[in-house]
Amino acid sequence: MTADTSTLPAFEAAALTDPLPLAQALIRRPSITPADEGALDVLQAALETLGFRCTRLPFGEGDERVDNLYARLGTAAPNFCFAGHTDVVPVGQGWTLDPFAAEVKDGILYGRGASDMKGAIAAFVAAVARARDDWADGAPGGSLSLLITGDEEGPAVNGTRKMLDWLRETGETIDHCLVGEPTNPGRLGEMMKIGRRGSLNGVVTVHGSQGHVAYPHLADNPIPRLMRMMSALIEKPLDAGTAHFQPSNLEITTIDVGNPATNVIPGAATARFNIRFNDLHTGERLSAWAREKLEVVDEGGDHDLDIRISGESFLTPPGLLSDLVSDACEAVLETRPELSTSGGTSDARFIKDLCPVMEFGMVGRSMHKADENIAVADLEALTEVYRRVVSGYFAAPRG
Amino acid sequence: MTADTSTLPAFEAAALTDPLPLAQALIRRPSITPADEGALDVLQAALETLGFRCTRLPFGEGDERVDNLYARLGTAAPNFCFAGHTDVVPVGQGWTLDPFAAEVKDGILYGRGASDMKGAIAAFVAAVARARDDWADGAPGGSLSLLITGDEEGPAVNGTRKMLDWLRETGETIDHCLVGEPTNPGRLGEMMKIGRRGSLNGVVTVHGSQGHVAYPHLADNPIPRLMRMMSALIEKPLDAGTAHFQPSNLEITTIDVGNPATNVIPGAATARFNIRFNDLHTGERLSAWAREKLEVVDEGGDHDLDIRISGESFLTPPGLLSDLVSDACEAVLETRPELSTSGGTSDARFIKDLCPVMEFGMVGRSMHKADENIAVADLEALTEVYRRVVSGYFAAPRG
Repeated sequence: MTADTSTLPAFEAAALTDPLPLAQALIRRPSITPADEGALDVLQAALETLGFRCTRLPFGEGDERVDNLYARLGTAAPNFCFAGHTDVVPVGQGWTLDPFAAEVKDGILYGRGASDMKGAIAAFVAAVARARDDWADGAPGGSLSLLITGDEEGPAVNGTRKMLDWLRETGETIDHCLVGEPTNPGRLGEMMKIGRRGSLNGVVTVHGSQGHVAYPHLADNPIPRLMRMMSALIEKPLDAGTAHFQPSNLEITTIDVGNPATNVIPGAATARFNIRFNDLHTGERLSAWAREKLEVVDEGGDHDLDIRISGESFLTPPGLLSDLVSDACEAVLETRPELSTSGGTSDARFIKDLCPVMEFGMVGRSMHKADENIAVADLEALTEVYRRVVSGYFAAPRG
Repeated sequence: MTADTSTLPAFEAAALTDPLPLAQALIRRPSITPADEGALDVLQAALETLGFRCTRLPFGEGDERVDNLYARLGTAAPNFCFAGHTDVVPVGQGWTLDPFAAEVKDGILYGRGASDMKGAIAAFVAAVARARDDWADGAPGGSLSLLITGDEEGPAVNGTRKMLDWLRETGETIDHCLVGEPTNPGRLGEMMKIGRRGSLNGVVTVHGSQGHVAYPHLADNPIPRLMRMMSALIEKPLDAGTAHFQPSNLEITTIDVGNPATNVIPGAATARFNIRFNDLHTGERLSAWAREKLEVVDEGGDHDLDIRISGESFLTPPGLLSDLVSDACEAVLETRPELSTSGGTSDARFIKDLCPVMEFGMVGRSMHKADENIAVADLEALTEVYRRVVSGYFAAPRG
């Protein structure tokens, strides 16, 4: 792989209206979490060209140290924020092109992070470069900001969460936030995310008593008990979905005993499960439900249950933000996106505590896969959508 | 650990009537399968002292090479055979004494193999040394033989099975066989084994389709299917037992998925099961039952099933052999052993194809464990039981 990590490209404000060179410059920095490899420097240079004031916010120590960036153009309210991440997932297997060369072939831009989500960051910067022409003094009637982390694909400990703490501590206010995660399953303009399901992970370990298979009366096999317990958890659907959410879902992600001996009854068995839940539930109530269910089925047997809530469900009800994106998609792409709450978690789960937040970005089909790519035409169209969202936001009447 | 592997002890026929020195000499050879470390040489020296003709029968190549011994006293029929093994299981953890020192403390002989089953071999040799006095010319009215393998605790490929092939090929006939495995759970004279359940092992792998937990409709989780399939196998007891056998039993010995990611639905899940079955079943019929059951429950889903039959159930109906052991136990220990078919497999599962076979040996409580041990008094009592069995066998009227 080649990666240009030595020199910073020089940007002229006029040239920044094209998202492609910036997208390529970002992809050429192999910023696999928690590495940055100069990706934030590239972005900062472009933003400073456009007049943004940039603050670098490194958090964590040693191997866990992650760099982050907050940038703001203007000082007045309201402050419209674009949030995202410059870190990318590891390369993995199966690439037919250099994952960090950012090659364009037949109108397709290839590279790790093209879809998730360096393309959207470049589109947002280009959208601001274009929108400047709409504003008399080159600044909007309010502020534009970027909240960019280098720790979204990793533990997400030293990234957005700590930046949000910093924003609160310094009295920096964000009024609305658009996250640039790839929300479109197959075609640009198909889907925006106005909320996300909550997520929790459980680990159940059932303790039995080890013994020889020939003497089952001297042992207590934990596997049938674990199967009964896990079967009880998936016996009935958790709900039938709500107005904006699909049904909650529980998946058993693994069962592991690790007993290599065919003549031994094992002493313990462990299962893990994940629940993606909608706005009918909270993590705490679901934890209590699972705990009670397992206790009833195990009839007082010896088992451990550990539950970690990764995030609660949240919803930004349809309104200003979703209307801006829908109108922009209709004008640029002749389609109005579905308002969805499906899919995995994103940093929007943290930002929702600060202000209304929704997500719209590139087509996500190739994200995290080999030969990750986006259409250059989509990058251009997303730039136009973002430009209309930003312009529309500051043109909208304020209450 | 100390182990005497250099010199062979010299035995005098008269001294061989005491089983303890031979048991100690055998234990001092650390013959962990497939190593022999001179254990068979020790035994052969003792047997030759008593007039046995010994044939060493090494089978296998390289790391799998195992040494075995067939020894016969006399040439006439009937041929009463004592079968066993000089190999032992690995030491493992937790010993408070040297496992190969064969120390006697407070009347207890400690050492790996004391119970399983060097003690019984020494008892049998001592029994023959004593029984010689019962026979006018020092030889019984028939033949006595020993069939001793160094591969019972291991793969059991180059041991008894190949020795039995050799017996058949050379026209060597065995009429009755007593296996010296430790059959007494807690007290000498409690139990003999007149048969064993059969055993088979199954491996089920259910194939699904991997995916992200947030998009379960794009994946096919194999775990609920595997749980339904395995639950069906243990839903009902296989039977209620028979005249000489306890109920057949199926144990799920492990389930393994090995999915470390909490946000991933796995693509495959594997379970293993073991069935110990009585004389109502055959391995083939049970395999067909499991195969059909799993297919019905999986409703045409994609899964693999591999079944290996380790041994069929067998029974040597109560008669000459069990009567000889019961009468001897009554005379020596004032108890008549239970006629059992419980517990794990032994080489009797191979020998039963050649002649009536049963098992009676030491107390097995400490076998395969740390500080394996037997009471010296039990070693003496077992010697007396074996002596009476041997003497009784040749004194019995022949049809």
